[in-house]
Amino acid sequence: MSTNVRVAVDAMGGDYAPGEIIKGALQALEAEQSLTLIFIGRQKPLENELKKYQYDASRVQTVFAEEVIGMSEPPVAAIRKKKNSSIVVGMNMLKRGEADAFVSAGSTGAVLAGGQLIVGRLKGVERPPLAPLIPTAKGVSLLIDCGANVDARPSHLVQFAKMGSIYMKHVVGVKKPRVAIVNIGAEEEKGNALVKETIPLLKACTGIHFTGCIEARDIPYGAADVIVCEAFVGNVILKLFEGTSSMLLREVKKTLMSSLRTKAGALLIKPALKKTLKNFDSSQYGGAPMLGLKGLVVKVHGSSKALEVKHSVIQCVHFSKQKMNEKISSQISAGTPE
Amino acid sequence: MSTNVRVAVDAMGGDYAPGEIIKGALQALEAEQSLTLIFIGRQKPLENELKKYQYDASRVQTVFAEEVIGMSEPPVAAIRKKKNSSIVVGMNMLKRGEADAFVSAGSTGAVLAGGQLIVGRLKGVERPPLAPLIPTAKGVSLLIDCGANVDARPSHLVQFAKMGSIYMKHVVGVKKPRVAIVNIGAEEEKGNALVKETIPLLKACTGIHFTGCIEARDIPYGAADVIVCEAFVGNVILKLFEGTSSMLLREVKKTLMSSLRTKAGALLIKPALKKTLKNFDSSQYGGAPMLGLKGLVVKVHGSSKALEVKHSVIQCVHFSKQKMNEKISSQISAGTPE
Repeated sequence: MSTNVRVAVDAMGGDYAPGEIIKGALQALEAEQSLTLIFIGRQKPLENELKKYQYDASRVQTVFAEEVIGMSEPPVAAIRKKKNSSIVVGMNMLKRGEADAFVSAGSTGAVLAGGQLIVGRLKGVERPPLAPLIPTAKGVSLLIDCGANVDARPSHLVQFAKMGSIYMKHVVGVKKPRVAIVNIGAEEEKGNALVKETIPLLKACTGIHFTGCIEARDIPYGAADVIVCEAFVGNVILKLFEGTSSMLLREVKKTLMSSLRTKAGALLIKPALKKTLKNFDSSQYGGAPMLGLKGLVVKVHGSSKALEVKHSVIQCVHFSKQKMNEKISSQISAGTPE
Repeated sequence: MSTNVRVAVDAMGGDYAPGEIIKGALQALEAEQSLTLIFIGRQKPLENELKKYQYDASRVQTVFAEEVIGMSEPPVAAIRKKKNSSIVVGMNMLKRGEADAFVSAGSTGAVLAGGQLIVGRLKGVERPPLAPLIPTAKGVSLLIDCGANVDARPSHLVQFAKMGSIYMKHVVGVKKPRVAIVNIGAEEEKGNALVKETIPLLKACTGIHFTGCIEARDIPYGAADVIVCEAFVGNVILKLFEGTSSMLLREVKKTLMSSLRTKAGALLIKPALKKTLKNFDSSQYGGAPMLGLKGLVVKVHGSSKALEVKHSVIQCVHFSKQKMNEKISSQISAGTPE
C-alpha cells in the first residue's frame, strides 16, 4: 500500500467531461502499475462511461457526487455551498488522507479556493502557487505563480522560487534548475517595488540557483527553468503566450489554405511542421500543480482531452513517489532570509 | 510656417545609426511636403552620411552634438551629465519650441527620462505613458503604458485611457476606439487592487468607449483598440508578444529548411506567407509615442531600419497637424471622476 499512489479524478470538470477525462485517466492506469484511481462524479454518466472500457477494476474506485460547480459560479461561495460536488468531495478525500492527489479540469477559481480552504497549506507555506509548465524552444519552463494570489509580497515570491525549483528538479528532471524573476529589464535597478525588494532575498536564498532577472521576450526561448512572478503577471504571461501562439498559427494555417499553390506547398511541409508544433502543444506536459498544499492538487485545462489528463495523472505519481511535499516542507522551513 | 512640421531626429541612436536613421527620415521628407527635418548628431558621421543623398536642403537642418548616450548608461544620470548628447539637445529644442517632435532610436530609459525631465508634462497630466502600437489579427492596438511608470495609481490609468483613445481616433483613424483594461479574467470582481479600483473610474469616464476587461489571450486577436495597463504589465505584454512571435517564426522557418521536401514546399508558400507575416511587422506602424508631454517624443526600436524611421517621422506630422496636444489637454482637464 505504501508505494501505491491514489489519484482522485474529477470526472465532471472540463469541456469534454466525463468522456475524455475517464479515457485519459484509464490510459494512465495502464501505464503506471503503482497507480490507483478514484473517479468522483455523478453516478449515471460516470457508470455509463466506465462501461465502455476494460480495466483492472481492483485499482479503480468510484465515489458519487451529484452536484457540479459551474465555470462561472463565484468560487468561494460554490465551494462552501456545494458540499456534494466532485471538487469538494475530492478535496475532502485529499484532506482526510484517502487520496494522495486530486486532478480537475473544472473551474480554476473553485479548484484554487478548494485547495486553500479545504486541503489547506503545508506548515510554513504562506501562499500556494499555481504553477503551469509552458513549452519553450528548449523544452519546458515552470511559470510560478499563475494563481489567484494577486498583490503578492516578496516573501511569497521567494517561496515560489523554492517550490518551483524542487518541482523542476524532482518531477521534471532538470538537474540544476535556473531560477529567474520576471522584470522589465535585465538590470537589477529596474522594476517595480515588489521585484526590487525580492531580488536581494532571492540572491541570499540557499538551495536554489538564482540567475537574475528575465525579460518577457526571453521566456519563449527557454532562458530560465523556473520563472518567478506574482500571479497577475503570471496570468498575463500564460494567456498571452497561448493567445499569441494560437493566433499566429491560425494565420499561418489560413495562409497555407489560401490558394492551390500554397495548398500544394502545405502538403509537402505538413509532416515536418506538425512535428515542430507538437513541441509547443502543452497537453503533453500535464496540468498545473498547485504547490504547497497538504496534498497535491493538479489543475488541467478546461479544454483538456485524454492525453493531457493521462500526463497529469502520471505527473501525480511522480510527485508522490518523489515525496515532494516532504521536500517542500523541509526547504520552506530551512529559513528564508528576512 | 504654421502648417510646417519640424521634426528633430536623433541621428546617433539605434543599432543602425546614422545610416538607416537618415535614410528613413529623408524618405519621409520626400513623402511629406509639410515636413522639415532637424538632424542632431556628431558632425563627421552626420555630414558624411548626408552627402550620400540628394534632398531639398532648404528643408533639412543639422545640429551638431558630439556626445552620445550609450544603451547601458543609467538614464537619469546620463541626461543630467551629457548636455551635448543628441537626446538632450533634441529634447531642449522641443522644450524651447524650436521643434514640434523628436524621434529617437536610442536608449529607452534616456528618452523616457529626458521626456519627463527636459520636455516636461502638459498641465494636468500626472504621468506621460509610452504607448506602442502592436500588430494584431485585426490591425493594430495601442498598448498604454509600456514606459517607466511602474507602480501606477488608478488615476494614471484613467488618463492613459483618455490619451490612448484620442491617439487611436485622430492619429490612427479608428472612429470609436474600444478601450479595455488588462485583467486576469473577464469578470470585474477578478483582478488586483489597482484594476479593481480603476474599473469604476473608467466606467464613469466620459469621452471614451470603455468596453470592460480584456484577458491577455484576446489581445493578439485585436479584441480592443486601446489596451490600458500599468507599465510593468505593459512591458511584459510587449516583450512577450515580440518574443513569442519571433521564436515561433524562427521554429517554423527552421522546419521549412529542414529537408529537400520542406524546402520545395517552402518555395510554394513563401510569397503568401511573406504577405501574412508583413501584417505582423511592427516596423510599418512607426514608433511608440510618449504622450502627455509639451512636445511629441517618439521612441523607435533600437533595431529600427529606414522603414520604421520613415513611418515614425510621418506619424509626427499627423500628430502635429491634428493638434493632438490641444486635444489631450482639453480631455485631461475635462475632469476625471475621483
